[in-house]
Amino acid sequence: MNPSGLEALIEALRCLPGIGPKSAQRLAYHLMQHDRAGAARLGDAIQHALQAIRHCQRCNTFTELDICERCASPRRDPSLLCVVETPVDMNMMEQTQAYQGLYYVLMGRISPMDGIGPRDLALERLLARASDGLVREVILATNYTNEGEATAHYIMAMLKARDINVTRIARGVPVGGELEYVDAGTLAQALRERKLLGSS
Amino acid sequence: MNPSGLEALIEALRCLPGIGPKSAQRLAYHLMQHDRAGAARLGDAIQHALQAIRHCQRCNTFTELDICERCASPRRDPSLLCVVETPVDMNMMEQTQAYQGLYYVLMGRISPMDGIGPRDLALERLLARASDGLVREVILATNYTNEGEATAHYIMAMLKARDINVTRIARGVPVGGELEYVDAGTLAQALRERKLLGSS
Repeated sequence: MNPSGLEALIEALRCLPGIGPKSAQRLAYHLMQHDRAGAARLGDAIQHALQAIRHCQRCNTFTELDICERCASPRRDPSLLCVVETPVDMNMMEQTQAYQGLYYVLMGRISPMDGIGPRDLALERLLARASDGLVREVILATNYTNEGEATAHYIMAMLKARDINVTRIARGVPVGGELEYVDAGTLAQALRERKLLGSS
Repeated sequence: MNPSGLEALIEALRCLPGIGPKSAQRLAYHLMQHDRAGAARLGDAIQHALQAIRHCQRCNTFTELDICERCASPRRDPSLLCVVETPVDMNMMEQTQAYQGLYYVLMGRISPMDGIGPRDLALERLLARASDGLVREVILATNYTNEGEATAHYIMAMLKARDINVTRIARGVPVGGELEYVDAGTLAQALRERKLLGSS
């Protein structure tokens, strides 16, 4: 029913996650009817990004350089390596201003439901990174979801076999959290991992 | 926090309706990490569509020709002109296989809330189209929403002033609809517009 160039655009928009046939049609109509300038910018931005964006050879995050600015910075502590699932998680860690070490970004998580196994994450690159002789501790900061936990367990086993120190960020009641509104699983875990006070 | 090419892509994705900053970031990461081939296709499709897609000079729908195939077809009845809001609505009408006339696609609706007035719809083109000497009846098939109703009223007044016959598609209980599940407004309208049986 649509002209072929429009059908091709609708079909191409479906590569975006969460966009089905109806949404794709709505988006294509919107771009062609109401925002041709935006569409032109989007086309250009996609093509520029495809050309410019690659992965940092050390931490695997997105960068336009061989080694990203953070990995190249002399102000970061090379003895700490924090493993996160995505660049967003890395940004969240940075916003805490409580971490001065380096990162390794998995760009995913082990998720059998989505057919993503350890091999798909290229974990041998993480192993090589953690074995550089400078790293003294690997901090696992994957999510506390089932997939994030499975990923952390797999990486822990892999690194322990090489005698690398591995830690996991703490689980517990969120800061500012009221017990009344914390789920039972979190509360049970906070109880199990309770800390002796007065000792530090 | 992101390299500039990625930031530009995230920003550009926000031209898509319903895509906020978080979604745009998620989409950009997905394209760069998991679907570069899809991203390349999308970039090409956008640029091709921008070049190829324009509006039919007669019915205003999207086409790659000056006059779309439907308007150019000798099998359609030029005495009937059906006014719809969007190409999707036109496709819905076609799927009924109950209409053999021609169309005019408004590519929108009067919507003061969104700052869209009659002028933004370029209704003088519809007026010219309806005054071609062949059209004997204009059928208003805008939605039965507030905006669609306002649009239909405006067009009706405009065309009546030129002595053009204007009709509106019927309102009522949907085919297969049970009274128990029809909203009161629809049922009230179906009652008001009841038809005498055994006549017609």
